[in-house]
Amino acid sequence: MKLSKLVGERYKEVPNGAQLKSHILLLRAGYIKQVSTGIFSMLPPAQRVSAKIQNIIREEMNRVGGQEVLFPVVMPRELWEMSGRYQTIQEELLRFKDRTGHDMLLGMTHEEAAVHMVMNTVKSHDELPCMIYQIQTKYRDEARPRGGLIRVKEFLMKDAYSFHTSQEDLDVYYKKVYDAYNRIYKRIGLKNFISVKSDSGIMGGKVADEFMLVTDSGEDRLVLCDKCGYKANMEVASGVKTPNLEGEMKDLEEVFTGNAKTIEELCHYLNIKEEETVKAVCYVTSEEKLVIAFLRGDYEINEKKLAKLCKSEIKVADTDKFGLVAGNIGCVNLTVPEDALIFYDISLENLNNFVTGANKEDYHLKNVCASRDLKDVVFDDIALVKEGDCCPVCGEKLRLTRGIEIGNIFQLGTKYTKSMGMKVSMPDGSSMEPIMGCYGIGIGRALASIIEEKGDDKGIVWPMTVAPWQVHFCPLRLDDENISAVADELYKKMQEAGIEVLYDDRIVSAGVKLTDSELMGMPIRVVISPKTMANGTAEVTMRETGETNFISLQNLLSELKAIIEDEVGEIEKNL
Amino acid sequence: MKLSKLVGERYKEVPNGAQLKSHILLLRAGYIKQVSTGIFSMLPPAQRVSAKIQNIIREEMNRVGGQEVLFPVVMPRELWEMSGRYQTIQEELLRFKDRTGHDMLLGMTHEEAAVHMVMNTVKSHDELPCMIYQIQTKYRDEARPRGGLIRVKEFLMKDAYSFHTSQEDLDVYYKKVYDAYNRIYKRIGLKNFISVKSDSGIMGGKVADEFMLVTDSGEDRLVLCDKCGYKANMEVASGVKTPNLEGEMKDLEEVFTGNAKTIEELCHYLNIKEEETVKAVCYVTSEEKLVIAFLRGDYEINEKKLAKLCKSEIKVADTDKFGLVAGNIGCVNLTVPEDALIFYDISLENLNNFVTGANKEDYHLKNVCASRDLKDVVFDDIALVKEGDCCPVCGEKLRLTRGIEIGNIFQLGTKYTKSMGMKVSMPDGSSMEPIMGCYGIGIGRALASIIEEKGDDKGIVWPMTVAPWQVHFCPLRLDDENISAVADELYKKMQEAGIEVLYDDRIVSAGVKLTDSELMGMPIRVVISPKTMANGTAEVTMRETGETNFISLQNLLSELKAIIEDEVGEIEKNL
Repeated sequence: MKLSKLVGERYKEVPNGAQLKSHILLLRAGYIKQVSTGIFSMLPPAQRVSAKIQNIIREEMNRVGGQEVLFPVVMPRELWEMSGRYQTIQEELLRFKDRTGHDMLLGMTHEEAAVHMVMNTVKSHDELPCMIYQIQTKYRDEARPRGGLIRVKEFLMKDAYSFHTSQEDLDVYYKKVYDAYNRIYKRIGLKNFISVKSDSGIMGGKVADEFMLVTDSGEDRLVLCDKCGYKANMEVASGVKTPNLEGEMKDLEEVFTGNAKTIEELCHYLNIKEEETVKAVCYVTSEEKLVIAFLRGDYEINEKKLAKLCKSEIKVADTDKFGLVAGNIGCVNLTVPEDALIFYDISLENLNNFVTGANKEDYHLKNVCASRDLKDVVFDDIALVKEGDCCPVCGEKLRLTRGIEIGNIFQLGTKYTKSMGMKVSMPDGSSMEPIMGCYGIGIGRALASIIEEKGDDKGIVWPMTVAPWQVHFCPLRLDDENISAVADELYKKMQEAGIEVLYDDRIVSAGVKLTDSELMGMPIRVVISPKTMANGTAEVTMRETGETNFISLQNLLSELKAIIEDEVGEIEKNL
Repeated sequence: MKLSKLVGERYKEVPNGAQLKSHILLLRAGYIKQVSTGIFSMLPPAQRVSAKIQNIIREEMNRVGGQEVLFPVVMPRELWEMSGRYQTIQEELLRFKDRTGHDMLLGMTHEEAAVHMVMNTVKSHDELPCMIYQIQTKYRDEARPRGGLIRVKEFLMKDAYSFHTSQEDLDVYYKKVYDAYNRIYKRIGLKNFISVKSDSGIMGGKVADEFMLVTDSGEDRLVLCDKCGYKANMEVASGVKTPNLEGEMKDLEEVFTGNAKTIEELCHYLNIKEEETVKAVCYVTSEEKLVIAFLRGDYEINEKKLAKLCKSEIKVADTDKFGLVAGNIGCVNLTVPEDALIFYDISLENLNNFVTGANKEDYHLKNVCASRDLKDVVFDDIALVKEGDCCPVCGEKLRLTRGIEIGNIFQLGTKYTKSMGMKVSMPDGSSMEPIMGCYGIGIGRALASIIEEKGDDKGIVWPMTVAPWQVHFCPLRLDDENISAVADELYKKMQEAGIEVLYDDRIVSAGVKLTDSELMGMPIRVVISPKTMANGTAEVTMRETGETNFISLQNLLSELKAIIEDEVGEIEKNL
């Protein structure tokens, strides 16, 4: 490809509103163009990377027996009513009416379509396990698109669906896909990724793992144990609370605390530590039932876990409406409506002599002891893990970090096959609803994640396996006929040798060429100039390391091919 | 691929509601499944054919310098308002509001997105010509989906857009793409296709060619001259009218015709031929202006041409509303509103002594002569060509046939660059709006068209270049351990040799296996059975010709590879 003809422009300036490294570099290097909020066009270099990522994914899906199919983007309401998701998914699901007035929607995931495809076609246990996958456009009516290709409304996704006759069979297959995912991320050149236990969210099901690129720019909070390998998304993580205050029980005492309403104010007023207090957070369920959760003052509530316990979505309550004394709500002598749901975090278990609200304006209770004052109480794990908490498996201090979700795999159970009525016949003549797994990777987000991990202050750094071109060829002084003749010849020969080459055929300064090449991120840069020509060499620089060698023009093609092979080999070893 | 694990079932019965050959066979052979009216899922074999067609298209687009990109499916109203198409396209364009209330739409074509991508990035004449293309899902809110993949709402399409600094440059490039299209259709195995001049419809622009698979099952009517090669879609075709009635002029005469209102009734009443009459057809424009077109009684109106002359969409008029005497409207002494548009077809030119309405209840006028009675009249070409008309180029009798549109190419002019304000700088310092071409191929329709052309009463017949698998391997009597061991070994060896093979590993009757293999349409069928094994051979049958040979098992792999190479060579020769 000649750069002069490549569609796309390169920019020096950081584009307005772009903050994430990948977003900035994709715009600056001419890879993407925004069409609407969260909606982008992919320019030729991005499309080339995307195609390479897709092919790697395809190879790995085929390796675990996947069969590629294609489901439609637009689906009828009826299909999603079968699973119940037409009702349960909120505004993220884009609904519209077609010209005949029929209710349609844009697919944000394709569980229903997958079951629709196999039901009545896959009928017998001996056709299972089977896995179908597609690479198809998805649309999610995302409330807050951000970060370029990281969180978008429209995106290309590989989604896969497997069907099994037993949980054991799903477990075995799930592990295979888990391994395939690890291979995929390694093959596209990522290094710093992990898998964490996660919440299955709108998919349903119980077991779920997320693959995370560990990076400070990530939206997801992760909880890791460096000793035993415990890894979880904050949404589902557990930690052992420290310190554990079990001092000798003192007598209950009501104290005047005046305007001290927040934990901070209370601690200041009474000169105590946050961990000596217990706070209340109040929500309502979607049926407007009151929910109160009590947790130690130094913890924050894990809303996902709380919602799960409530079996409902929850939102922050208007405490006045329920006659509660905001700022003085406490876990002793609390009066609430009969249908209210009260939860106690495990941080209260064994906690002695803490301060909590007295359920009375301007007063708190001192020396509350869980074992004495909270009778018949069940303690739940409903607080977010915080710095200092210990690993629930091995007891080591946990480490908190952030990540970008680059893929997820779920065990769905029979949620979809049951609701949609898919059955297969079993050897004993009975029939069963197959157990499903589902497995997703967003192509655009994977592409952006590579930039997040490897990009530097000069620009993008592509791994050899997914680079739009392997070589960026920058002949300097193309106004010199000698140079331009040699350059054209070399370009031709590289192409003939099967090297993917982007040829900067413009007559512009060395500065512009080299800066553009660093910005665009091809793994190998080849420069020829009057100086190198005088020595019969080309200057070959690796984008990632900056390592430069002068290679004789005679050996250039074979050396380049060797470098490309080595780089791919380096990435693909130890899969 | 083992057939026992392949997702999809095969059926003997013709599915309800399916009439077109490709629709029936795609359903019966387990290639597609309907999700909603005009919306289908592609099962694994269809997805494999689709991928091969896409790759051939990609190769040919790249060969003419195309750069692959990806535009979004969902676009904002603003983008389509720039071109004016948000207003001008009717219900086919699916519009919806996103969760923020923003007006969005589903792309049915991507001219606006293409201009959006290159505007402000391609700035100078020396970056042109350039062509970008994508393979992306399209949605058209089709009123009457039909024929399986032939006319659908959602489909995968390759659409390409080129930009030029002069009409000459576009002409040269347009011819290149024209040639690329011919190569594509040949390479996917089509034979009976032609290109015809066509109407550019909602795209705008003047020059347009459609590629048509010639088949009686086609929706489009085609006008062909076998002598000089004139080829046009009926919508734009012209024909020389015969007979040309120029008899000696007689005197005008008003005759009572009573209830004879239609041309048929009139001819019967007066005992004359249709070509001796002139009829009126009445429409209104979108601004409710009356439109009357006069044409010889044996012709039908070409609504597309008439609408173009009116520069408006047209619909059939309520004649009463305009005070016209339905059934007696004539081209002499006609009273109409001042802003009415009156057109005369060229079939009236030189026509003498014809009968037309007298614009008076129960009466017609006889012996009307165009040269005498229609003063200062312009004759337009507004009638559909009919059987018996002659070629406008060479005068030979025209042939009417039908076709399926399998692709189209348009010269768009500056409609989009002008309306959207895209300019490039020219060598003399001036700037210009680039001239565009656009080029589309529907992937699913191409796939179905191959079946329309080659399918027979037993099933699908795939050309080697796009077949989901090259070989359908049917070992009979797999309950015999000898056979099954040899079969497994042969399957493994075929795969190792790079042969794409579908292995019918089921223990079912020979009848079921052979019928399924014919239905599914792989180009080569390989059968082994106790009988062939006794001779150390396999039975190799070509699906298209039925030709069968017994090939020794030792030579089987090399013979299969030779057959595959020959078949591909046969298709790809003379491109």
